Amino acid sequence: MKAAVILAGGSGTRLWPLSRRSRPKQLLRLFNGRSLLQETYQRLLSITAPEHIFIVALAEHLPAIADELPGLSPHNLIGEPVGRDTANAIALAASILHAKDPATLMGVFTADHIIRPADRFAGVIEHGFEVARQFPDALVTFGVRPTSPHTGMGYIERSERVSPGVHKVRAFKEKPDQATAEQYVTSGDYFWNSGMFIWRTATILQQLQHHLPQTYHAIEPLAAAWYTAAGQSNAARIYPTLQKISIDFAVMEKAPNELMIDADFEWLDVGHWTSLPAILSADADGNIRALQRSAILDGRHNILVSEDDHLIAAVGVDDIVIVHSPDATLVCRRDQVDKIKDLVAKLDKDFEGGFS
Amino acid sequence: MKAAVILAGGSGTRLWPLSRRSRPKQLLRLFNGRSLLQETYQRLLSITAPEHIFIVALAEHLPAIADELPGLSPHNLIGEPVGRDTANAIALAASILHAKDPATLMGVFTADHIIRPADRFAGVIEHGFEVARQFPDALVTFGVRPTSPHTGMGYIERSERVSPGVHKVRAFKEKPDQATAEQYVTSGDYFWNSGMFIWRTATILQQLQHHLPQTYHAIEPLAAAWYTAAGQSNAARIYPTLQKISIDFAVMEKAPNELMIDADFEWLDVGHWTSLPAILSADADGNIRALQRSAILDGRHNILVSEDDHLIAAVGVDDIVIVHSPDATLVCRRDQVDKIKDLVAKLDKDFEGGFS
Repeated sequence: MKAAVILAGGSGTRLWPLSRRSRPKQLLRLFNGRSLLQETYQRLLSITAPEHIFIVALAEHLPAIADELPGLSPHNLIGEPVGRDTANAIALAASILHAKDPATLMGVFTADHIIRPADRFAGVIEHGFEVARQFPDALVTFGVRPTSPHTGMGYIERSERVSPGVHKVRAFKEKPDQATAEQYVTSGDYFWNSGMFIWRTATILQQLQHHLPQTYHAIEPLAAAWYTAAGQSNAARIYPTLQKISIDFAVMEKAPNELMIDADFEWLDVGHWTSLPAILSADADGNIRALQRSAILDGRHNILVSEDDHLIAAVGVDDIVIVHSPDATLVCRRDQVDKIKDLVAKLDKDFEGGFS
Repeated sequence: MKAAVILAGGSGTRLWPLSRRSRPKQLLRLFNGRSLLQETYQRLLSITAPEHIFIVALAEHLPAIADELPGLSPHNLIGEPVGRDTANAIALAASILHAKDPATLMGVFTADHIIRPADRFAGVIEHGFEVARQFPDALVTFGVRPTSPHTGMGYIERSERVSPGVHKVRAFKEKPDQATAEQYVTSGDYFWNSGMFIWRTATILQQLQHHLPQTYHAIEPLAAAWYTAAGQSNAARIYPTLQKISIDFAVMEKAPNELMIDADFEWLDVGHWTSLPAILSADADGNIRALQRSAILDGRHNILVSEDDHLIAAVGVDDIVIVHSPDATLVCRRDQVDKIKDLVAKLDKDFEGGFS
């Protein structure tokens, strides 16, 4: 079986007021009315059949996710009782898939990036599945050639070439400082860690058993009984006790036999509202409009966002982010979006129930 | 009978997106959750009884007005089929009141200004009623001492003093240019025309008969049958044919025997969003907040407005007007509010149904 697992457990408030704890950014319908999760799912349909596409997400988000992806069976939605980072999400999905078919090749995909064009993505991923089939003990990862010395990204250092577009991995590097990031980009041997992987379930489980034995031994019995009431009840009890740890830190920084595919598609983080100009095209005045109804008089380089048909009208303002949500509006200078997290903290303090 | 007539026929979009054709500014609940109309009504309750307070407004606005003033009998709501400016509204109200009681003293009040303090207003108006009783053939008007050479205001030039705080009127002056306005303010003999008047219904009807005979003769029979289905049907037919004209232009600029009371209360127009700073107090950073829920990080001299509990959050912006309404949001630089009318015109063109 060729399975695709989408990790959709992310949350965060950097895209507040649209993103909330109850509504992570991968569910925001900002891209011609479609969400990042829908876009991710759509891309994967050219790789494998819907019955082999699985989502791992917070259990509380599953109803919203089911609404986004009506083509998906409820059995393909794996809900974690609490978030315990990617190592646990991957361990759970790998165990469930391995129980279904021990010969499964499992791709891991994230739902919070824009990737284009879709056909190049499909080619790269198909190549990855080929490589994982060819090297059954390898952990295959995808490195994106950096377009800037981004300090918010993990990097993969490649070593010798194995075949066209495939290199051995020398090291996984955590987020670098500016000087280091610049060296990385100049060297040509460092790639952004895309958070996407392909491996046999048998291989990743073996690595997890070795490097993260507690998680492995806790999750395996949960997976075996996953689709039963008892299994769900056990999960609710055991999941909170698991160590919160990323797959990079738990496995990728330690495991031998890792291969990196050169992922030569466009791969864009939607980290802040100010990420939108890289993704959406601007009007003649440089305004980005991710909404249905807007009017701008004498305004340039603004970013207007709404998911519904609410109208945003801007007069005489430049370089402003304006985001409408049903219960809150954000008006923020473009160069100050880093303060949104402080704002959300303030709202949590000032208003009962908060807005996060 | 001492009657108070509130002219609430105004409309306009300078307070868009809250004010709309269907929802004039006197109904906006911007002042501690109360509307200008409610404030006006409340002020008049110290002058006369609710059964003697009448509203003249567009018929289509009456349901909303009835919601605002639940203490008022439907008989006290006079709905004009279409707006024909103040001369016709006053002629209609005077005729209806005169038919009830030919000895009526009628005060005319506007609903689109902030007036304070309430007790000083009451004193000035009581004085006006005294003067109108004392001089039965006079048209009594209220002049506000100008605090600035406002070019958007009509002025009253006073002549000799009749009694303390009462002068004869030399002339009504239309909106002056800047230089003239400055002369007016310097001279000390020019007062803002408040649009408020007191007179016997017999006196104003006599003046209307003389200066605006067509309106007078058309409206008198309408008023006589006003509270009947036939009267309403006639009004719908005849009202659109009436000349659209203000009481200033039709009568006040021409009539003899006019007296001006020195209205020494604070009298503030709510003409634009940028009128709010004169009316509402600002926080330590100079932000005006006419709403229930807001948060401002590093922002100064902003104006935030919402009638409902929608949150507006501003980060890093200065001198911006942000107004939330259920279907539209305005973000406008403070010095560009004059462009709101152009914006509304553009919206009417760009969107079916428009937003005005």
